[in-house]
Amino acid sequence: MTICVPDEVGKQELKDLPGVEVVVWGDDGPPPATVDGVQFLVPPYVLSAMTPELLAGLPELRVIQLLSAGVEPWLDRVPDGVVLCNGRGIHGASTAELAVAGLLSVLRELPRYHVEQVAHRWTPGRTDGLDRKRVLVLGAGDIGRRVAAAVEVFDAAATLVARRPRDGVAPMSALGELLPVHDVVVVALPHTPETHGLVDAAFLAALPDGAVVVNVARGQLLDTDALLAELVAGRLRAFLDVTEPEPLPPDHPLWGAPNVLITPHVGGGTSGWERRAYHLVREQVIRFRDGEPLENVVSAGY
Amino acid sequence: MTICVPDEVGKQELKDLPGVEVVVWGDDGPPPATVDGVQFLVPPYVLSAMTPELLAGLPELRVIQLLSAGVEPWLDRVPDGVVLCNGRGIHGASTAELAVAGLLSVLRELPRYHVEQVAHRWTPGRTDGLDRKRVLVLGAGDIGRRVAAAVEVFDAAATLVARRPRDGVAPMSALGELLPVHDVVVVALPHTPETHGLVDAAFLAALPDGAVVVNVARGQLLDTDALLAELVAGRLRAFLDVTEPEPLPPDHPLWGAPNVLITPHVGGGTSGWERRAYHLVREQVIRFRDGEPLENVVSAGY
Repeated sequence: MTICVPDEVGKQELKDLPGVEVVVWGDDGPPPATVDGVQFLVPPYVLSAMTPELLAGLPELRVIQLLSAGVEPWLDRVPDGVVLCNGRGIHGASTAELAVAGLLSVLRELPRYHVEQVAHRWTPGRTDGLDRKRVLVLGAGDIGRRVAAAVEVFDAAATLVARRPRDGVAPMSALGELLPVHDVVVVALPHTPETHGLVDAAFLAALPDGAVVVNVARGQLLDTDALLAELVAGRLRAFLDVTEPEPLPPDHPLWGAPNVLITPHVGGGTSGWERRAYHLVREQVIRFRDGEPLENVVSAGY
Repeated sequence: MTICVPDEVGKQELKDLPGVEVVVWGDDGPPPATVDGVQFLVPPYVLSAMTPELLAGLPELRVIQLLSAGVEPWLDRVPDGVVLCNGRGIHGASTAELAVAGLLSVLRELPRYHVEQVAHRWTPGRTDGLDRKRVLVLGAGDIGRRVAAAVEVFDAAATLVARRPRDGVAPMSALGELLPVHDVVVVALPHTPETHGLVDAAFLAALPDGAVVVNVARGQLLDTDALLAELVAGRLRAFLDVTEPEPLPPDHPLWGAPNVLITPHVGGGTSGWERRAYHLVREQVIRFRDGEPLENVVSAGY
């Protein structure tokens, strides 16, 4: 069987698997002649390198394994009979880590202290902190659970909310009651039709003064103009690793808004990324080769 | 009995205790006439407001309750027969929180991203992260244990070291073996004659390339010149909330060294500070009034 991966790192990580041929199909263009027989595809990072026509030209294709947790651009591209798997678990720890890093930076005012450092000024002051904060975490998957565990180390109380309520996880329908009694909201939900625009003007207005909004999910979950208005009014604070639009254009007013820290969608982008990614891919390839059920299946078709 | 506190907040927090008179002795000067009868003293924040002569003028004094975890300036000032108690527990959560905030900021390069934000530039890149990092935590008290718990949420492995080895805590004598196999060192030990200058050139040289040094304890535990040399060489990274000297003078080369984030000794300085401080003081005053053993005793004399 033939596996297609987007880079040489992937080839190196998989090439010792018995019964598996590994070919590289990068962002630069179409696959080599050998890919006619590709059954398991890890697509290139640049989506436009992967047109429906190219996919249709892979008659043996059975599995598309993404390296991202988000699947939205793929949902209508998957050919009939092909199973789509996402990269859940690859980015969880690193995205949760950035959410907590950004939240703590906002609360403890680290960007301001860095500006003081550059000016060689020692100017201690009292800042906010997590102690006794009520943190609402939207999304009870790997990211959300790690964020909750981390903030509780520092005496905050976390409330988990998810689309599927279960033990210890409140339903989305409870948001109306929960928002006014939380000081921090961390958005860690997938982007779906239900979550699109979830964090709108009414959502933000329900938060108490001084609340911190953290978005490490997708920019489309949050109404940028509504958040901007709250930031400019000095009423809310934010840490955003994702924005809408993205990349954020140089002249966008969000860049210079008060009380916001912005990083350029680097939640999953730490140096352990490839190791974690190809660990998952390797496990999936072994399952596929051995006829066992795949994990992380988004839409089953084989 | 008479209790002396350094501010009106303290007076408000304690004045309802039966059998207790509360007077305020701030940074501005000597106590009012009433303090002749002071038995329990929470000293002013400015040490120079509290001379040995003034202390000697309090014939009834039995307890000095500090609001800091560190006690070093007090050890030779405590009059005979007076018990000294520190503020252990007041600053633990907030100091551990700053240690983790600073460490994550260094690893995830948040200061650099903030500079990019100010320039309106969206420039994603891959950064370091805690995943699979080995974190050596010096000090197994409240601060150290919280730091260890937080980094483990993000798939780092923590090793605790303390002066008093116990189950799950390595002895200081193991440092020689431990330093070369850790990627991060967090210093959270009290400043004592044994820990003075602990993190010296040899200690730093034993760390692997790229290691991160975090100091949230006292500047005197770390040889500033030795760390500066490692930073300038590009070999180590650091987050420092405390420095030697302190405050760091405007012309000190540490300010502009590469790969260091500096905050001005604000580990314990969050907005919940006074609440946590006077909660401890209140408990101690009640114990003292009722003739029960005090907690946080550093040197017993009564």
